[in-house]
Amino acid sequence: MIRSLLIANRGEIAVRVIRTCTELGIRSVVVHSSADRDSAAVRLADEAVQIGPPAAKDSYLNIPAVIEAARTRGVEAIHPGYGFLSENADFAEVCEADGLIFVGPPAKVMARLGDKSSARSLMAGVGLPLLPGSRDPLEPAEAAALANEIGFPVIVKAVAGGGGRGMAVVWWAAEFTRAWARTRATAQAVFGDGRLYVERYLPSARHVEIQVLADQHGNVVHLGARDCSLQRRHQKLVEESPAPLLPAALLEEMGAAAVRGAEASGYVGAGTFEFLVDAEQRFSFMEVNCRLQVEHPVTEAVTGLDLVREQLRIASGEPLGYTQADVRTTGVALECRVNAEDPDRDFAPAPGVLDECRLPAGPFTRVDTHAFPGYRVPAVYDSLLAKVIVWAPDRDAAIARMRRALGEVDVRGAGVATTAPFLRDVLDHPRFRAAEHDTTFVESL
Amino acid sequence: MIRSLLIANRGEIAVRVIRTCTELGIRSVVVHSSADRDSAAVRLADEAVQIGPPAAKDSYLNIPAVIEAARTRGVEAIHPGYGFLSENADFAEVCEADGLIFVGPPAKVMARLGDKSSARSLMAGVGLPLLPGSRDPLEPAEAAALANEIGFPVIVKAVAGGGGRGMAVVWWAAEFTRAWARTRATAQAVFGDGRLYVERYLPSARHVEIQVLADQHGNVVHLGARDCSLQRRHQKLVEESPAPLLPAALLEEMGAAAVRGAEASGYVGAGTFEFLVDAEQRFSFMEVNCRLQVEHPVTEAVTGLDLVREQLRIASGEPLGYTQADVRTTGVALECRVNAEDPDRDFAPAPGVLDECRLPAGPFTRVDTHAFPGYRVPAVYDSLLAKVIVWAPDRDAAIARMRRALGEVDVRGAGVATTAPFLRDVLDHPRFRAAEHDTTFVESL
Repeated sequence: MIRSLLIANRGEIAVRVIRTCTELGIRSVVVHSSADRDSAAVRLADEAVQIGPPAAKDSYLNIPAVIEAARTRGVEAIHPGYGFLSENADFAEVCEADGLIFVGPPAKVMARLGDKSSARSLMAGVGLPLLPGSRDPLEPAEAAALANEIGFPVIVKAVAGGGGRGMAVVWWAAEFTRAWARTRATAQAVFGDGRLYVERYLPSARHVEIQVLADQHGNVVHLGARDCSLQRRHQKLVEESPAPLLPAALLEEMGAAAVRGAEASGYVGAGTFEFLVDAEQRFSFMEVNCRLQVEHPVTEAVTGLDLVREQLRIASGEPLGYTQADVRTTGVALECRVNAEDPDRDFAPAPGVLDECRLPAGPFTRVDTHAFPGYRVPAVYDSLLAKVIVWAPDRDAAIARMRRALGEVDVRGAGVATTAPFLRDVLDHPRFRAAEHDTTFVESL
Repeated sequence: MIRSLLIANRGEIAVRVIRTCTELGIRSVVVHSSADRDSAAVRLADEAVQIGPPAAKDSYLNIPAVIEAARTRGVEAIHPGYGFLSENADFAEVCEADGLIFVGPPAKVMARLGDKSSARSLMAGVGLPLLPGSRDPLEPAEAAALANEIGFPVIVKAVAGGGGRGMAVVWWAAEFTRAWARTRATAQAVFGDGRLYVERYLPSARHVEIQVLADQHGNVVHLGARDCSLQRRHQKLVEESPAPLLPAALLEEMGAAAVRGAEASGYVGAGTFEFLVDAEQRFSFMEVNCRLQVEHPVTEAVTGLDLVREQLRIASGEPLGYTQADVRTTGVALECRVNAEDPDRDFAPAPGVLDECRLPAGPFTRVDTHAFPGYRVPAVYDSLLAKVIVWAPDRDAAIARMRRALGEVDVRGAGVATTAPFLRDVLDHPRFRAAEHDTTFVESL
């Protein structure tokens, strides 16, 4: 097993990874920007290295600075968390070239799956259903022709996109050219890659994803499904496992499809196959996320596995040590993302100093956070403040538990607001209660 | 289901019970002394009623004041927590007489089991093994004669005792008369009942207890065993479930014995059968605790049940709804009691204002506490500050997780100390690691 790990991330996920390191006796080194000097991750890690100013491009996205910290602190491996460098194949390649273990799939696998177009081709090749659309990047004219052929609405997506960015839904043919140009500009600016593709857009679909684990010896298992349909502007707000209402046979088919896709791509590590499930319960492959997901705790809660531990074991070359038949899930887990945003002001970021910060606890209740009383929520990073995760024997009990937990959130400060009250309203909604919500639910409220 | 509940307790257990009420939609009313005016329970309950000054005898033990609060607030039921009035049969009887549902066994069952002497007779009658000793209360001369017959060491215990108080180990015949007189005086003072009995003392034994649930319709199940051998002066410090190293057949036999004892006594509610297991793995009945135990969360973690919910369902007249065959346990759970005591000063209470109060969180980690930053730990009550509970697939992983969690405890203030560092040392000890510790382990350090 690796004995030292650099965590190239911040916030709750840095704290999360440190905890597993401590349990496994792995020396943890966290890098941080000057804005995170007094963070929980810095306090809990064995060592901390300041690598740059607040702006992410100069700190958490600064590859040379991260590699330099790893070298001077003599670590064996780097965990990228999610976001930032986690799906940057160039970074994975630099790690490999420098003899550092990158905790994630090999750079070339990540490059291939990160290109949504080549990922679609690869998955179609092993029988994963795709929505009608292009496999290759398109020029505007052929894209418009294809969109007409598929029929509107369509979705235009950046080949290099991810995390809900670099995409646009186009409802009418007349909008197409302008949407294409705008998305291309965004993709070029955000991902440095303006290539786009097009596929059918499902206005009413569920976002269901399969967690896979693949070791370096060819063993692949899946850990069941997560439903992440509760989104706002393509950002997930509430996640759950297992996926409610879907027939067991469908979930089994999706699990097998994800395993097949992981095998075909030579995947190694923890990864997520994202699918859309339409109203007729047909599933379509969307993309692979080559990293730990924000919502991984719901899978942990129903399987009993520590996914970061599994990532580190795999990165160390250990075999999984269990087969698909050994994987059991029990009960229902929910996660709510409590963001420092003001629901009454269109979810505008609401950072500031937390004069009060009491978070839930108690039976079957987990809170992953980096927040604490007196913490200054920086305005420069994302607004995730805490993830509240609950487990219960059934979905109704899990919802009741989550309502109780969210009611305990007491976070206050000048200018500070959180999404906790909004999330409680969502949980109370009959459509969510009946698990009849889809990805358009929040916008329909 | 009952719709309103008064909680006649304080601290973490009051918070614990409130959480389940909130999840079940039960209106919660907490009573409190003036010392607990700003407590977490008062903040989280739907209603709070101040019933007296700090001294427990004038507040939490003040039966007329508790009943009056229940009457004025119009609640249907009373949950006594643990300690205070929880095993007071007179209180249960007053509740019954006033038409209030007492969340616990019927008063007459509690009276019979609370009398250790009649409990021993009852359990012997249904075949539970007892240590050699007296079934009835004794006079000093016959007690001394019996002690000589049993052979030293013996333990002298108050018929009305419990919670580790009102007992004395006697190692030599020459000490017997004085020990008897001293214990009788203590028992008279603490329990208002000076009757004593005597039984063989096992210097090297494990404390293993079985959790039972019994509904009002005659259904009884057990939820497996907890090992609570890690004690200091008869106070439990670390608890775990299942009990390590014991053969499955023995645990099954103990579980069946507890169910038989519950059936024979007409038990209703959640209760605990305490046993000693000697070095030859023979078990002996000690006593029944007619209430929720401090250590109930380890059973919750391995069974997935919410024991307070089960108590409230039973008190409402609902049938259990499952049989012994439905009860499954998974993995290993540990609990550590973090007390506001100074291990370097012989565990003297170390109360005060908590300037800093950061407690563990993360995967499979639960903290039940009433503490928060700025909380003034009162000097008048017990010193339990927080219970840290972890779950893991196996015992080694659970210990590693608990070590990590205890390392996150950061509680500071003038005069404040906690037992967290001491508990970490205990977890690191080879005897605890090997599960070879017994009830004398801490004193042997």
